[in-house]
Amino acid sequence: MAGVGTRGRRPGGVDTRAEIVTAARQEFAEKGYDGVTLRGIARVADVDPALVHHYFANGKEELFVAAMQLPFSPAERLPDVLAGGVDGLGERMARFFLSVWGDPQGREPFLAVLRAALTNEQAAAMLRGFVAQTILSRVAAALDVPPEERELRVEVAAAQLIGVAMLRYVLRIEPLASANEDDVVALVAPTLQHYLTPDL
Amino acid sequence: MAGVGTRGRRPGGVDTRAEIVTAARQEFAEKGYDGVTLRGIARVADVDPALVHHYFANGKEELFVAAMQLPFSPAERLPDVLAGGVDGLGERMARFFLSVWGDPQGREPFLAVLRAALTNEQAAAMLRGFVAQTILSRVAAALDVPPEERELRVEVAAAQLIGVAMLRYVLRIEPLASANEDDVVALVAPTLQHYLTPDL
Repeated sequence: MAGVGTRGRRPGGVDTRAEIVTAARQEFAEKGYDGVTLRGIARVADVDPALVHHYFANGKEELFVAAMQLPFSPAERLPDVLAGGVDGLGERMARFFLSVWGDPQGREPFLAVLRAALTNEQAAAMLRGFVAQTILSRVAAALDVPPEERELRVEVAAAQLIGVAMLRYVLRIEPLASANEDDVVALVAPTLQHYLTPDL
Repeated sequence: MAGVGTRGRRPGGVDTRAEIVTAARQEFAEKGYDGVTLRGIARVADVDPALVHHYFANGKEELFVAAMQLPFSPAERLPDVLAGGVDGLGERMARFFLSVWGDPQGREPFLAVLRAALTNEQAAAMLRGFVAQTILSRVAAALDVPPEERELRVEVAAAQLIGVAMLRYVLRIEPLASANEDDVVALVAPTLQHYLTPDL
């Protein structure tokens, strides 16, 4: 309970990082991903904004990942998926997605945010901004598709993967739930590839 | 409150149907779709099984639809989608699905069961059985695909649609959320068609 009873901005301490994360969780829930600023989180946490930058050098994305206890940030893992360009991108996306969701510990935090998004609009707004800005826009930027189609194509590709997660890991409908990963990849990777590279 | 205090099996009355529906809801939640019998529902509702048949001539599917307040049963609407055979089936599925989910009143009961399925395993088991038996198996039976691939193909097609529903109507990610229905159909119908008729 260090810091309790202390007024004014506190210096960094053992639980300062945790308090910033708690403040971030509250701010994301209230304002959505797009509406949150690091300065606003610092204010709620009652710390100097420089401390927020100190603990979360990668900014809002890293704060959201910490607040939602996600196992990694898109900034950490997407570059590998996107490296190598659009050739084979559908298969790399499918394999990466299935490897994350195939791990019960890995999928739980994602399920939690999805569950919240289905339950209230604030949580939906929060997840919407995060997914759009940290995942979909990065994939869209990698595509060689006219700008007016790019985002829609990335979104229907993402929809394919999210739907597979719902049926395979949440509803656990057979045979999809027990199908081996290669068979699922063989079915959905060409679909993703077609959405992402319509001319190839 | 007619019937309260009356012991033994009650005859059909103004609220008998409602009591059967309440009993059905409880039984589906406890036993999953597959584990429920009309006889078991009659026992919980404390009515003669013949009365359950009287009110729900189409059996378990109709009881589930009433219990979950779904706007229609697959038995009522799927025949139209499947009529005409596999030719154009992807487009008819996409249009039907989007028309149901595009209506806020229409999608609410489906969202409710999906939300429950994300929250607890009993609700997931209930929805799993219903979807598998009343939707997926009917679509699978209409396909000209080797039996060992049929269900998996229907499931990844269903996954595409459910994922679109999540991103378009729940997360409301743009541009997908505001895209007109024809543009969404133009993107996903060929995917569905490819899953359902791989050789065409």
